[in-house]
This record gives sequence, C-alpha cells and structure tokens, in this order.
Amino acid sequence: MVSINDVAKYAHVSKMTVSRVLNHPEKVSPEIQAEVMAAIDALGYVQNRAGRSLATNRHYAIAFVMLDQMDQVEPYFGNLILYIADELQRKGYTMALHRSLDDTYDSVDGLLISGARPHDMTHITSLPLPAVSYGAHPAIHSVDINNQAGTTMATEHLLNDTYDHYVYLGLTMTDDFAIQREAGFIKTIGAIPHTVVHLPNDEHIAHDYIQDMLVQHPNLGIVAATDRLALGALRAAQTQGKAIPEEVGIVGFDGIFIHKLTELELSTIVQPLPQIAQAMVDLLLEQLDAPSETPIMREIPPYFSQGQTS
Amino acid sequence: MVSINDVAKYAHVSKMTVSRVLNHPEKVSPEIQAEVMAAIDALGYVQNRAGRSLATNRHYAIAFVMLDQMDQVEPYFGNLILYIADELQRKGYTMALHRSLDDTYDSVDGLLISGARPHDMTHITSLPLPAVSYGAHPAIHSVDINNQAGTTMATEHLLNDTYDHYVYLGLTMTDDFAIQREAGFIKTIGAIPHTVVHLPNDEHIAHDYIQDMLVQHPNLGIVAATDRLALGALRAAQTQGKAIPEEVGIVGFDGIFIHKLTELELSTIVQPLPQIAQAMVDLLLEQLDAPSETPIMREIPPYFSQGQTS
Repeated sequence: MVSINDVAKYAHVSKMTVSRVLNHPEKVSPEIQAEVMAAIDALGYVQNRAGRSLATNRHYAIAFVMLDQMDQVEPYFGNLILYIADELQRKGYTMALHRSLDDTYDSVDGLLISGARPHDMTHITSLPLPAVSYGAHPAIHSVDINNQAGTTMATEHLLNDTYDHYVYLGLTMTDDFAIQREAGFIKTIGAIPHTVVHLPNDEHIAHDYIQDMLVQHPNLGIVAATDRLALGALRAAQTQGKAIPEEVGIVGFDGIFIHKLTELELSTIVQPLPQIAQAMVDLLLEQLDAPSETPIMREIPPYFSQGQTS
Repeated sequence: MVSINDVAKYAHVSKMTVSRVLNHPEKVSPEIQAEVMAAIDALGYVQNRAGRSLATNRHYAIAFVMLDQMDQVEPYFGNLILYIADELQRKGYTMALHRSLDDTYDSVDGLLISGARPHDMTHITSLPLPAVSYGAHPAIHSVDINNQAGTTMATEHLLNDTYDHYVYLGLTMTDDFAIQREAGFIKTIGAIPHTVVHLPNDEHIAHDYIQDMLVQHPNLGIVAATDRLALGALRAAQTQGKAIPEEVGIVGFDGIFIHKLTELELSTIVQPLPQIAQAMVDLLLEQLDAPSETPIMREIPPYFSQGQTS
C-alpha cells in the first residue's frame, strides 16, 4: 500500500504539503500541485477514506444523476459515466449512479447531473447539496461545450472550399444545444446561399432529404447538427456517385463513435468527453470547499477532427 | 408519494402480501408476484429505504465494478450500466460504480462485476460479500449469454442458403466468449468447406481480409465474431459489387448498436442487455436472501435479428 510518506518522498515535499494539495489545493502553488499530483499518479496512491472522513466530515461519495432517457441519447454517451467514475476515483471519491432526482441524497457530498430539463431546476436548487449540470442552465453550476463555436468551425471549414449551396441539417428539438449549434451556422454563413432544415436525429431521414436536395443542388456543403445526420447525408452523396469532398462536403457534430465507423471517416466537431468529465468533477469539488452563490458555467471548447468528407 | 397501501389496493391484495413480494418473493406465487409488480410499476412505487434498512439490516446499495478497459469494450457497452442502475432502482437499491476491486466495499450489500479476469477470482472469492459476474467463471456466481448457441444459430442460418465456401471471422483473443463463439461455428459447419481466421476486432482489417478472400471464393457465407468484423466484411462485399445476400451472406454478433448504422442492416446475434441486467440483479438479490455455496451460472439466450445481409 502506497502511503502519504511515499508520495512526499517521491515529490520531494513534506507530508503536510501532500495533505494540503489533497484537501486544500487552493493554498498550494500550481507548480507544487502538479508535482504532487504527478507523484500520486506515478505511485497509484489512494487516500484512506475513513481517515479523510474523520478529518473533513465528508462522505467522499458523489451522486451522478443521469436523467436522460435511454432512447434519447446516443448509446455511447453512457461513456461519460465511466470517465466521471474514473475521474472521481482518481480524486478518492466513489460514485453513486442515480436515475431520478427523487432519491434521497443523504450519503453523498454533491451531485453531478446530466439531462436536466428546465422544470427540474426548482428541485435541484432546493437540494441542500452542491450540484453541477452537464448542459448549461442559468440557475445552477454547469459545464457545457461551446456548441456555437463548434458549428462556426464546421461552417468556416466548408467555406474554405467553395460550394454552390450550403445546407444546415438541424434538429426538430428546441433544446439549448440544438439552438446554439444552429446559431453558429446562421451567423457564419451570412448572405451565402443556404437552406436550414429541421429533422429528427435519424440517418435514414437525413439520407432521403439530401438525396432530393442533390438533384437541385449538385454541389453542396453540408453542416450537420449530429454525426447521425451527417452519416445519412454521406450515404446519399455516395449513392449518387458524388466526389467527396470535391462536389459534396460534410462536417458532422459529436465525434464520439459514429464518425470512426463510416466508410469514409467523417469530418466532425468532437465533444471531448474526458475533459468534460474532468471539468464537472473539478467544479463540484471546488463547490465542496468554497461554495459559490452565483452559478458558475464552464465551457469546454469542442475541436475539429479532420476526416475524409471535407 | 405512492404508499404500500396504494399498491395493495391497486393489486387487490393485502399490505402484508405486497411486503412479502418485496422482501421474500419466494414465499409468494408467481401470479401474485406478477400482479403486485405490475401495480408497483403502474404506480411508480418506491420503497422507503430507511424503513427497510431498519427492518432488514441492509444498506440497499450495490456496487457495480466495471473492470473492463475503456479501449477494449465497444463504447455502447456502457449502456449495461444504465440498465443495471434502472433495474436496481426498481428494486429500491442504489448503485455505486467502481472501477477497481481494491476499493472498500463496507457500505454495499453485494457486488456486480464486469470484465473480471481469471487472476481476479481469488480476490473476489475472498470478499465477505456476495458477487455476480457478467461473463462465466467457474469459481463465482455469473450471468452470461450462451455464446456457442449464438454462432450455432448464425451458422445454421447461413447454411440454409448454400454458399460455395464459408469463413469464420474470429478474434485473436483467448477469452472464453471468443472460444465459445468459435466452437458454435466449428461444430455446426462440420465437413462443409470452410476457413477459420483470427483477427483483431477492427473493421478495416476484416475488410482487407474479406477483399482478398473474395478473389478465391466469390460465393461466400461469413459468420463474424463481432458486428465490427461483420461491418468490414460487408463493405468489402459491397465494394466488389456483390449481390447481398445472394452471392455473399453475412451474420454478425453483438446486436447493440453497429448493426443498425450500416447501410444494409446487418443480420446479427443480439446480446439482450436489458435481460442480462435483470438476471444479474435478480441473482445477486437472491444471494442476499439465501446465499448459495455452489457457484450459480445463469445463461441468457441470445437471439437472431434478421437484417438485409442474410
């Protein structure tokens, strides 16, 4: 078993410094923090939970409340749970997975929430524990990706090659992320000829739509709100023997799994799940040490992944 | 808040009967159990945890220990966690997600484990708590799908149409599920001309292998150990303009997500995750009530999903 002494020796600091990094990192310089965390990672040190609980009066357990309906999230989204569990474990916390806000939360220190809807906010703000949501909400602490920046990148990228017409494959839903993604396209495309359409998140519907559209617009730049819509568009272009990306260019959004499975790898905007998990855990643990009355929102930048479709 | 009285009235039974169904289902007939569970589902009844804990001396918490490496499982496999969390919640238990067996398990009643390796068995059997593994292991309680029955179905299905040659796209790994899947093919194909190959689970490698093979065997029945391998085989056949399933037939294995995304829907053997989750939870809760010294193994039958590739 690796002890706090081993960590101190490895990092060439005192035991007290290691303890400070673990319990009050704000009192330690970033350089020392980095050295001690590197030693902890290298040695695989895990804090003794009972000892810490006595010292700090914490449960060292966090609830992850996944409110999303199974049929409304992409299956691979469940991976966010694993990244969060890994991140919590590295910080010495366990994770309790919940599927409803109605549960009792008396043996955890705080909540991480995914899939919260506006009508959940009253309930969440009335809880006596700090909470961090994945997905921006003005009333509570949250982490989100900058969706608008993502579609701005996608649109700018397709504008580098000139297509005769552009289309945004948007979603019929009115969730904030869908609105933000659409806004990124609209603001960037400006007066350049374009069409915006709202579809269910289904590759077959996107396929049929683009198939029809290519008759009128044989030279088309496509920004899709999701990789699933982009996948349908790609198939429609391939079936019609289009040169990709010369005649038809496509950029998707999500970048978790689907873009790797397509025959031509999709260019896409990646939601970096590991960084999202880390930001959620960091923000919640900060709230345990020093709660903020004002809701804090942290934005994680998505990034462009170059595939073969743009 | 729905009470036990509401459930009793709805199911036309006494409160005592509802309590028995919840705490000692073995003392109640299957018909009554079904009626009471239907009432519980219909009304959304959740047992009061504190009350139960006093009565039964339980934590009403279960650890799910996911030992799989993130890069070794298909991303959508994380969905098993959600199905298990939902199933535990319906039974009034919370779920703590762990990523290591080295954690302390003093506030849970038992463990569900996925991704356990032979060298983990000593550790698992030494724990003072009951444990159920996903994936058969002779030393501990387990739930698994009948992998051999799955590839037997797949092979029989492709033998209905006659191909000149058959190939089994197997995996290089020697995990039990991989061995069982291969055995199902070998025993069913018998003396019919065939080839067995072992590949990493990568669609590009499967694509290149089948592309070469189609030169020698233009009329080919393909049983794949995973949908990912089947996806590569499908692309190779499509690129060469093969009539599917007339000239080339393909059946995959897993049936969770990939088979729905392919242009032609893959025929596949489905691992029914909801039933697996339910069987794991049921077996573990039975062990809490009446522990069995002899390891129990429950097999869930996979089923054939007819796509367009066979």
